[in-house]
Amino acid sequence: MTHRDGQARRGVLTTPHGSVETPVFMPVGTQGAVKAMTARDLEDVGAMIILGNTYHLSLRPGAELIARLGGIHEFASWQRPILTDSGGYQVFSLASRRQVREDGVRFQSHLDGAACELTPESSVDIQARLGSDIAMVLDDCPALPAAEALLAESVALSARWAARCRARFLALHPGSTSDVTITNPGQVQFGIVQGGISPDLRRRSADATMQIGFEGYAIGGLSVGEDPEQMYRTVEMTAPLLPAESPRYLMGVGTPADLAECVARGIDMFDCVMPTRNARNGQLFTSEGLLNVKNARFAEDDRPPDLVCGCYTCRTYSRAYLRHLFLSGEIVGSTLNTLHNLYFYLDTMRGIRDAIAFGTFEKFRQDLSRIFSRRSLTP
Amino acid sequence: MTHRDGQARRGVLTTPHGSVETPVFMPVGTQGAVKAMTARDLEDVGAMIILGNTYHLSLRPGAELIARLGGIHEFASWQRPILTDSGGYQVFSLASRRQVREDGVRFQSHLDGAACELTPESSVDIQARLGSDIAMVLDDCPALPAAEALLAESVALSARWAARCRARFLALHPGSTSDVTITNPGQVQFGIVQGGISPDLRRRSADATMQIGFEGYAIGGLSVGEDPEQMYRTVEMTAPLLPAESPRYLMGVGTPADLAECVARGIDMFDCVMPTRNARNGQLFTSEGLLNVKNARFAEDDRPPDLVCGCYTCRTYSRAYLRHLFLSGEIVGSTLNTLHNLYFYLDTMRGIRDAIAFGTFEKFRQDLSRIFSRRSLTP
Repeated sequence: MTHRDGQARRGVLTTPHGSVETPVFMPVGTQGAVKAMTARDLEDVGAMIILGNTYHLSLRPGAELIARLGGIHEFASWQRPILTDSGGYQVFSLASRRQVREDGVRFQSHLDGAACELTPESSVDIQARLGSDIAMVLDDCPALPAAEALLAESVALSARWAARCRARFLALHPGSTSDVTITNPGQVQFGIVQGGISPDLRRRSADATMQIGFEGYAIGGLSVGEDPEQMYRTVEMTAPLLPAESPRYLMGVGTPADLAECVARGIDMFDCVMPTRNARNGQLFTSEGLLNVKNARFAEDDRPPDLVCGCYTCRTYSRAYLRHLFLSGEIVGSTLNTLHNLYFYLDTMRGIRDAIAFGTFEKFRQDLSRIFSRRSLTP
Repeated sequence: MTHRDGQARRGVLTTPHGSVETPVFMPVGTQGAVKAMTARDLEDVGAMIILGNTYHLSLRPGAELIARLGGIHEFASWQRPILTDSGGYQVFSLASRRQVREDGVRFQSHLDGAACELTPESSVDIQARLGSDIAMVLDDCPALPAAEALLAESVALSARWAARCRARFLALHPGSTSDVTITNPGQVQFGIVQGGISPDLRRRSADATMQIGFEGYAIGGLSVGEDPEQMYRTVEMTAPLLPAESPRYLMGVGTPADLAECVARGIDMFDCVMPTRNARNGQLFTSEGLLNVKNARFAEDDRPPDLVCGCYTCRTYSRAYLRHLFLSGEIVGSTLNTLHNLYFYLDTMRGIRDAIAFGTFEKFRQDLSRIFSRRSLTP
C-alpha cells in the first residue's frame, strides 16, 4: 500500500512476471487470448495483468498441453502477470448436467458434452500446470436468488473446498513430488468470500477464508443480477473484514462507475468482460458516456469516438468509419472498438490511482458516476 | 522503369498519395478495410497501396457519403495510395438478376435486393467521388468458358464502354462543372484488356484499349478457372502488346508462384484475396510452402509458422497457439494469420524487386515455383 484516500487504496502487487499497480482492471482472456487483441495491442492500451479462464483452457487445448509448452505465459506469448479463475463459475454458468457433491462438481463440457469433473484439488493442479501468477480457489456458485439456508450450506461447502484447495496448493508449492508440472513456482493463491447479499453469510465466509489464509482475497458472487446498491453495500461491509495488507479482488465487476464505487469501498482488483464484449456489440465507453457506433446519427460524423481519448482508434478513425465497419461485419471493427474500450477502462484506472495519490479521489468518483449510470448498460 | 531483367521490370509508380515501388502486390480492402487489418497493421507489413471495391463501397456506405467525408483516404484513414476497381467484376460475381445492355448493367444489390444500375459513366463518377489514386474502367465480365463469338461481342462491348469511361473521366478531370465531387484531382485511369485465353481477342482488345489511351493498362478476365499454363501463356502474349512505359496490372492474381511467373512475363501490379482469405481459413504461406494451422500435428509445435519470417506473428507466436486460436474461433487468430500472409506476399515482392535489380530474378522465380505449386492451393 503506498497511498490511501478514505477507504480507497493505491498500492503495488508483486508477481513472478512483474509488478502491477493497484487498483487495477484485468482484461478477460477467456481462451488464452483477450478477444480481438494481440499481445502488442494489449501492451499498447496499457494492460498490466490479464485473466485466463481455467474452465475453457482445461477443456481446450488442455492444461497438460500448456504445461508441456512451458505454461500459459509461454503459450500465449504474454510475459506480464496472469490471473486464472478456478473454473467453478464457468462450470456453473456454461456446462450442463451439473452435480455438486462434497467431493467436487461433475458436469458435461459445453464443447462436446464429455463427462468432466472438477474438484478443489484438480482445480489447483490445473492452475499449477497453467502457471498463472495468481490462482483462485474453487468455490460453489449457486444460482441467485437462493434461499438463505441454501446459501448458508453453499458458503460452508465453499469454505471446506477452500481448505482443500489451500492444502493442495501448499503440497504442490514448492518442491512437489507429485506428477503435476509446476510451470510457475512463484504462483500465489487467493481465497474467495461468498455469501450473496447477506451480511451474516459474508462475515462467516470472510472469517472462514481468512482462517485458512491466502495471499489475497476475492469477493465473489456479486454482479449476478442484484441491484447495484445491494452490490455496493455488500462490498462496503465485506472489504473492511479482509486483511488491510492483502490485495482485495472483486470478481466480474463492472461498469466504469462500479470500478470507482468499489475502489471507494476498498477494492484493489477487478475483471469484467464488459469492455471487450460491449466493444464487439458496437458499444463504446467514452468520457461523455456510452456511444453506440451503429447509431444512424454517426453515419457522417467524422469525429473520433471520444474527443479527448488518446487511444489508437480515437487518434486514427472516425465514428462514421467505425459505424461502417460494424454494419459491414468487418472484424477489424471489433479490434478497433475493443482497443478503445480497454484503453478507456485502463485509463480510468490510471486516473483513479492518480486521484488516490493526490487526495482527489472523491471528486473523480463523483464525475464518473455522473457520466455512467448503471441502468443504461447492458453487460 | 528503373531496372529490367528479361521481361521483368522494376520501377516506381507515382500517385497523389506517394510513390509505389513495382512490381507491387495490393492487399484487397473490399469494404474500405483490408479484412482483420488496422492501418498500422498494414503499414507494419509494408503495404504500399491497397485496393478498394467500388461495388461494395457504392452500396454501403455510398460514394456520396464518402465524398462528403473527404474521400476514401480520409474515410478509411489510409494515407497511402488506393486503387479502386470499376465494380463490374463484383456485379457479375455477386449481384443477382443481371441484365447487360449497351448502356450498362442492371442488377439487384446482394445486400438488400435493391434495383441498381452501373454504367460506364456512373462507375467513373463513383470512383471520382471515392477519390482513389487509380480508377479502373467498367468492363463486361462474362462467365467462362464462353463461346468465341460471345467473347468477341463482350470484348467489343468492353471497348465501347472503355471509350465512354475515358470520355467521362476526361470531362471530370480537371475543372469539372458537373455535380460530381472530385475528392482526388490527381486520380488516373487504367484501361482493361479482356479476351479470355484467345490470342486474337486479346490483341484486338489491347489495340482498342491503347487507341483510347490510359495512364496504365490492366489484364482482366484471368484466374477465373482456366489452367495456370493458359493464364501464363495469355499474360506472356498480352503484356508485350502494351506500352513499355505504362504500368501493367494483372487483376485478381494470384499465388506466390503466379506473382513471380507473371512478373517474368512483364507484369508490374497484382491484387488477390488469397493471402487474406486463406489466412482466415487457417492457411499460411511460408518459405517452406503451405501450412494449415489447424493441422493436429501442430498441437504442441512451439515453433513460429515460418522459421525465417520477420513478421510480428512469427516473431511472437507459435504454431500451437495459432492452432488453438483457430480451433477456438478467436478472431485475433484471423488477425495474426492475415498479418503473416500479407507480410509473406509483400516480402516476396520485395525479394522480386531486389532480384530484378541484382539480375538474379530467374533464380528467385525458380525457387518460388518449386515451393508453391498451384495445384495445392485453394483460393
